[in-house]
Amino acid sequence: MKVLLIGESMGLFMAEEPGPLYKAHRFISSIAGAEYNVAVGLSRLGHTPVYCTRLGEDPIGRQILDGMAENHIDTGLVSRTNEQPTGLMLKGSTQEGDPEIAYYRQGSAASKMAPRDVDRLDLSGIDWLHVTGIFPAVSDSAMSATVRLLDRVSALGIPVSFDPNLRPQLWPDERTMVSALNRLAGYAQVVLPGIGEGKLLTGHGHERDIAAYYHSRGAPSVIVKLGGDGAYYSANSGGSGYASGIEVERIVDTVGAGDGFAVGVISALIEGLPLSEAARRGNAIGAIQISHKSDNEGLPTREELRAVLAAGKVCAR
Amino acid sequence: MKVLLIGESMGLFMAEEPGPLYKAHRFISSIAGAEYNVAVGLSRLGHTPVYCTRLGEDPIGRQILDGMAENHIDTGLVSRTNEQPTGLMLKGSTQEGDPEIAYYRQGSAASKMAPRDVDRLDLSGIDWLHVTGIFPAVSDSAMSATVRLLDRVSALGIPVSFDPNLRPQLWPDERTMVSALNRLAGYAQVVLPGIGEGKLLTGHGHERDIAAYYHSRGAPSVIVKLGGDGAYYSANSGGSGYASGIEVERIVDTVGAGDGFAVGVISALIEGLPLSEAARRGNAIGAIQISHKSDNEGLPTREELRAVLAAGKVCAR
Repeated sequence: MKVLLIGESMGLFMAEEPGPLYKAHRFISSIAGAEYNVAVGLSRLGHTPVYCTRLGEDPIGRQILDGMAENHIDTGLVSRTNEQPTGLMLKGSTQEGDPEIAYYRQGSAASKMAPRDVDRLDLSGIDWLHVTGIFPAVSDSAMSATVRLLDRVSALGIPVSFDPNLRPQLWPDERTMVSALNRLAGYAQVVLPGIGEGKLLTGHGHERDIAAYYHSRGAPSVIVKLGGDGAYYSANSGGSGYASGIEVERIVDTVGAGDGFAVGVISALIEGLPLSEAARRGNAIGAIQISHKSDNEGLPTREELRAVLAAGKVCAR
Repeated sequence: MKVLLIGESMGLFMAEEPGPLYKAHRFISSIAGAEYNVAVGLSRLGHTPVYCTRLGEDPIGRQILDGMAENHIDTGLVSRTNEQPTGLMLKGSTQEGDPEIAYYRQGSAASKMAPRDVDRLDLSGIDWLHVTGIFPAVSDSAMSATVRLLDRVSALGIPVSFDPNLRPQLWPDERTMVSALNRLAGYAQVVLPGIGEGKLLTGHGHERDIAAYYHSRGAPSVIVKLGGDGAYYSANSGGSGYASGIEVERIVDTVGAGDGFAVGVISALIEGLPLSEAARRGNAIGAIQISHKSDNEGLPTREELRAVLAAGKVCAR
């Protein structure tokens, strides 16, 4: 099935030595971006991600285009430009906790995407759209482009999943972030907040109330991610419950857990599985993802996913 | 002596493996920039470079500030901002010829410098200003800031050296580049073109005619760099000749040769040496520089410089 994504992929320089980024000497080059991670994961499960973005005509842009092709991501909606560079990010190496992150994406090619860029896209054959709260945060025009795409896709009856993916450093202030993300969530058939995100976005402390909030704003389905405790799923049409967490023998890097979760949910839903099963698959892929260092290289094939779901845990590698 | 520089230092990611940049996996982080190289070289000879620039409040900006402090570069005229990031560049690894370069400096903190940023600088105690043709090329406001600084410095009677440092990719077209750089050269007491640069900028094929062109536009001194053949120096007041090249046993990386040359010329002139001696010292430091891989780490101490001048050659290390 064809899943459309809109976002910004960036060149990622990962420090090899632990310590503050400004002192790091050796870096490994890779590709970053929540939507890119989701695309890689969907492709690995045999679906066809179609990535809509804009890249610079520079080595990082070329590297990303090659990475997409290698990962069987459809690049038919990727445009390139000489006018702005591709975005970059640096990621510190950490033995514990969240790594230090620095963005060099301001004024990037993708950040200059505007409604006219999505007006002319050929959306025929698209089965699903996945949107995160990151890309709309990079610029006003990226926000407008995202809204325009959501309008077009909704008019065509294509279902939408939305992962708020809070990035407070990209927003002018928390109030703006909260209202903008909740507005975007209003387009989604499935909203995928983490429990902390949900609290901040809705003001409610319990997963049930967070789900109810998004139901009341029109979302038929909500899955609240509960970290190691799994996920709470809720369908407006009735049916809610908990999908228990998948045990992980060793947490290597928590980056990309939410993206892995989205891969599980989207793939399950487009395959016609129920919401409970989607939450279960989300838990499994999230758990697999945090057992790997890279943001997306550990995302499972269908076989690996089956094995983890059968075992109910991810073994240390 | 205090030498003022205005420019953009960038975070430099150098590929470790040969091949095209977009395929490079491992990178070493360092600091780049013609003016930064000149500053490091002057400091190593015991002078006090004062670097006027603007850096982002990000890990690369912090790395550069630390690098300046480590290299005893006066950072009193460095400002920092949250509004734009520090510029970056990637450099390919090459066994032969010029390395592949990609800039990620568009919209950078330094590129946003404007005349008002140089209006308020305290220039007391400055003995010399060195300007290259790179910084004025990064944006219109950087050009205006450079011109404003040149106006202020000229009014104070502070001598100026100018290295055209052609970067055609930063200019809209060749004609604009040529007229802009020749305008800047009009401020300089010493103009330092390479022979190829001089041909392009003046339309003259011979070093003597290139020098005459800049004399006619007001430059008291011109030194034309002739690569392995050394340099041709010419003073408007009379006195011209050739400073023969310094033999280099093994050329490792030609990047920074011109910056090393500028270090030699500026340091000699502020120490009161004649133009012929300045050209000779320029040759020596340029030769030392190309015997090292890094853009600036090989720049000599006074002792190393003396040894090379005495030997008349740089031995393979």
